[in-house]
Amino acid sequence: MLLCDIGNTSYHFLQNEEEYKKDAKTFDPSSIKEKVFYICVNPAVKLLLEKLDNWINIAAFIDMRNYYETMGIDRIVACEYIHDGVIVDVGSAITVDLVKAGLFEGGFIYPGIKAMSQTYKNISSALDYAFNFELDLGKMPKNSADALSYGYIKTLVCEVNSLGLEVHLTGGDAKKFAKVFPNAKVDERLIFKSMKQIIKKAKLC
Amino acid sequence: MLLCDIGNTSYHFLQNEEEYKKDAKTFDPSSIKEKVFYICVNPAVKLLLEKLDNWINIAAFIDMRNYYETMGIDRIVACEYIHDGVIVDVGSAITVDLVKAGLFEGGFIYPGIKAMSQTYKNISSALDYAFNFELDLGKMPKNSADALSYGYIKTLVCEVNSLGLEVHLTGGDAKKFAKVFPNAKVDERLIFKSMKQIIKKAKLC
Repeated sequence: MLLCDIGNTSYHFLQNEEEYKKDAKTFDPSSIKEKVFYICVNPAVKLLLEKLDNWINIAAFIDMRNYYETMGIDRIVACEYIHDGVIVDVGSAITVDLVKAGLFEGGFIYPGIKAMSQTYKNISSALDYAFNFELDLGKMPKNSADALSYGYIKTLVCEVNSLGLEVHLTGGDAKKFAKVFPNAKVDERLIFKSMKQIIKKAKLC
Repeated sequence: MLLCDIGNTSYHFLQNEEEYKKDAKTFDPSSIKEKVFYICVNPAVKLLLEKLDNWINIAAFIDMRNYYETMGIDRIVACEYIHDGVIVDVGSAITVDLVKAGLFEGGFIYPGIKAMSQTYKNISSALDYAFNFELDLGKMPKNSADALSYGYIKTLVCEVNSLGLEVHLTGGDAKKFAKVFPNAKVDERLIFKSMKQIIKKAKLC
């Protein structure tokens, strides 16, 4: 089975146990002839795929009543996977979504590492530091590099932990954030696993 | 008495009860002949002012042992003003500093409104919304605009409130943030008041 999770910058494929990525701007989806089950948040790619019969959008097989209209399909698919917990999906943006008793209870969006790093740099050249994921979150910092890292990381950690539920970390930077969410379940394939479950439930394959 | 708080973008003057600003790039400080008590975080302006005898840097009259070397003088001056509490100074960056029993206990830096708004927009055109300071911080959002506002505002509020001390709000956007820190003391002139206190204590005037 070929699965594809399409974001703003790339097509992310999973075939059996092998993952690979293609650039969203240059990849031609019609070059694939076999059946592909996909989700897509990229508006330009969406238009391309609608014309291709072998690309099957699994969004059509999810009960959307519980979600809101402009919510990214990647967030929805992640929420479908858990019964109780918080999904923290760390990519170019970080999405935090709350699920209770199998129902989506709301969520928020926070900048990813690259975007936030650029933000500090844009404010002042004096704020051009790499984030330190090893910092002590129990202590207010007394140096510039940690003052930025704490501002970026601890504020997020504070809010996520306040939700009081199990944290599921996924997305490209999941391993980095695992350092600051030591009790989180890290599952970089959570989206693909959920896609498989939806496909199975809908008897598509 | 003429006071001046110089940031990355402007000279901010207070003369008696009147405030005014001048562009940091174009204003010529030698055009002022009277005595000016100032603080400055702008490296280029610092060099200019060192040559002018009537511009008096009050940083020289603060006991710096309790602060760290690269800490902005505006943050230090704000901390000097309180005995116990949290200073939240909202400008192009937001600085959050903790003072206990008259001692600086550390602090962090978070992006200001304009910088963070640009960050979301840069991640995706789908994230181009103005922040909503009226949103219900007690409830996870179910729409895109509030999902961004919550991500920006609630994470900060969560961490600041967790410090458990009185919040002093200052800086250009203090009034906006007063909506999300309803118990905070808003004092847009906190820096100037602290400067006056330092000047008085050092018997400079």
